[in-house]
Amino acid sequence: MSYTAKQWMVKEQTGDHLDIDKTFELVTKQLNVGDLKEGEVIAKITYISNDPAQRAWIHKKNIERRLYRPPIRDGEPMEAFGVSEIVESRNPEYQKGDQVFGNIFWADYCILPVGSIVMKVPGDPTDIITLGISGLAAYFGLMNVGAVTPKDQTIVVSSAAGSTGSITCQIAKNILGIKHVVGVAGSDAKCERLTKEFGCDVALNYKSPTFKQDFEAATPDDIDVFMDNTAGEVTDLALMRMKDFGRVVISGAISYYDEYDKKGDISRGSWMQIICHKIRIEGFIVFQFAEQFAKALGDLGLWAQEGKVKLVKQVWDAKVEDVPKGMQKLLRGENTGKLITKLVAGR
Amino acid sequence: MSYTAKQWMVKEQTGDHLDIDKTFELVTKQLNVGDLKEGEVIAKITYISNDPAQRAWIHKKNIERRLYRPPIRDGEPMEAFGVSEIVESRNPEYQKGDQVFGNIFWADYCILPVGSIVMKVPGDPTDIITLGISGLAAYFGLMNVGAVTPKDQTIVVSSAAGSTGSITCQIAKNILGIKHVVGVAGSDAKCERLTKEFGCDVALNYKSPTFKQDFEAATPDDIDVFMDNTAGEVTDLALMRMKDFGRVVISGAISYYDEYDKKGDISRGSWMQIICHKIRIEGFIVFQFAEQFAKALGDLGLWAQEGKVKLVKQVWDAKVEDVPKGMQKLLRGENTGKLITKLVAGR
Repeated sequence: MSYTAKQWMVKEQTGDHLDIDKTFELVTKQLNVGDLKEGEVIAKITYISNDPAQRAWIHKKNIERRLYRPPIRDGEPMEAFGVSEIVESRNPEYQKGDQVFGNIFWADYCILPVGSIVMKVPGDPTDIITLGISGLAAYFGLMNVGAVTPKDQTIVVSSAAGSTGSITCQIAKNILGIKHVVGVAGSDAKCERLTKEFGCDVALNYKSPTFKQDFEAATPDDIDVFMDNTAGEVTDLALMRMKDFGRVVISGAISYYDEYDKKGDISRGSWMQIICHKIRIEGFIVFQFAEQFAKALGDLGLWAQEGKVKLVKQVWDAKVEDVPKGMQKLLRGENTGKLITKLVAGR
Repeated sequence: MSYTAKQWMVKEQTGDHLDIDKTFELVTKQLNVGDLKEGEVIAKITYISNDPAQRAWIHKKNIERRLYRPPIRDGEPMEAFGVSEIVESRNPEYQKGDQVFGNIFWADYCILPVGSIVMKVPGDPTDIITLGISGLAAYFGLMNVGAVTPKDQTIVVSSAAGSTGSITCQIAKNILGIKHVVGVAGSDAKCERLTKEFGCDVALNYKSPTFKQDFEAATPDDIDVFMDNTAGEVTDLALMRMKDFGRVVISGAISYYDEYDKKGDISRGSWMQIICHKIRIEGFIVFQFAEQFAKALGDLGLWAQEGKVKLVKQVWDAKVEDVPKGMQKLLRGENTGKLITKLVAGR
């Protein structure tokens, strides 16, 4: 048996301002069952997770040894997390027809190497994508890195309508009972959802001309914890409002990924706040908490069942030819909640 | 009894680029014993500690509520830490002739309000100034904030020939036994002392045209802990070399105090390292560890006695009229070790 697969390769790593035509290239491959090695499977990809981090994996300016995972080099297939259905298996743990979650490729069919599969999909595939990536980031950012407790009065979340931010706001409000949750997002429509659906007490549009004043007005008692998915101007403003011993949790830096070379976001006055107010800034990668994934997914699943944490998703249908457009959507902030590409058959 | 005192006032808070004539004003006051309130003393000032933080207390750009102590406003007397001899006392704990350490003023004689005195001077007044300010910053920065242990292989110290840096390097090498201590300073003469006297394995001159390459060459195995007294370019370089879970301890930012408005020191690539390498950046003020001062001063005193930590001082003689020049000396980096003004009688 043989499958004709279409797969996106990285033609040339990109600097700032992603141009998908220059960066990616679609190739056609034959995947033959006879070529499978022990432990490998052939998978039909059904859902691709769109994550900001993917943009960083193909940035020319990256220094390879300073990334948390190998970059994707020129001529290598583009990777992602996602869900696929096994169509051929030489792995005794997985049978034909199994839906699995793990590392996949930008492709319609692919061979999954040993170790790519994390788990079988327990229910709705878009749930596990949302929980297993953004949910975990929100969970460990709040619980482990931020060590947030109900004693914390004011929490600010940047990129609050995004995949991680929308869950962060809801856990802060509905699980931890934080009194004052401030979300920052990039449109009035997103801001409306922040307060109506995601548990924010105040929502701020960072594109508003009065954003700086709005930010100050929204944090009259200063900030205990700043959950940062964005970096840039919002981070600079937040540093000027942190309480003594305030914590800044760095989960992402989406404003940086497509504009790497711009400098000067953190001003000197706000840097000095780190000293004056004994601020702690700390970054993390969810994989450092791998031993606690089961517990975290259990908690998140329960909260979702109870309706305390709504998994906000934006699933868009795409033919394999259109897959790179998902990265553009993310960088333009066109999503609310977790952006997921649902692969549909092309005409 | 009455004393004619000369005291420096802040005429006008200053922005960038300190001009001492515009900023300070010397006034003459009569201090009368009869005016002393209960608990007050009249003191003859003998040693004034020159600390970078004093520069920040008079910066126009400061937002008052964002400082760790009240700024010194226009028309108020300039403050400092230092040693004085009590000449008149209405405080039962302190007698005429006592040498005391605590908050003083830029003056030859002054009235010390209740609570200004921290302790009687146990020995050489310049020792307690060095230990009680810079020594404590080095101690708590390493031991408490950085939580440095001999497991840490590489430590980088900025402003390493300065008052805090010189002690930090020695504790790291001679007490904690850190394998690779890298000090950064601003002249070849300072660099020579770093390796010969202060325990550094490598010393780097940040004014050298090859500094960036030198920095990379000096940290081939990356950095466990960066003890930062400087901020700016050195911080940016260090962030690019931190190990997984590396710690950046922010003790000071001397490169910022006289050039507040310049932006753009922390570049985007190095900020993203906070995420990729799970870096923790943390600031502190020694007073947050006040309960541990006695233990810390005991340890530091013992290490000094044993010759493991040499207290590096630069004591300069000044008439009261020349006191503001000490601040200039610090900002220009003219000191090695703790800069202390010894007040001498005018001609």
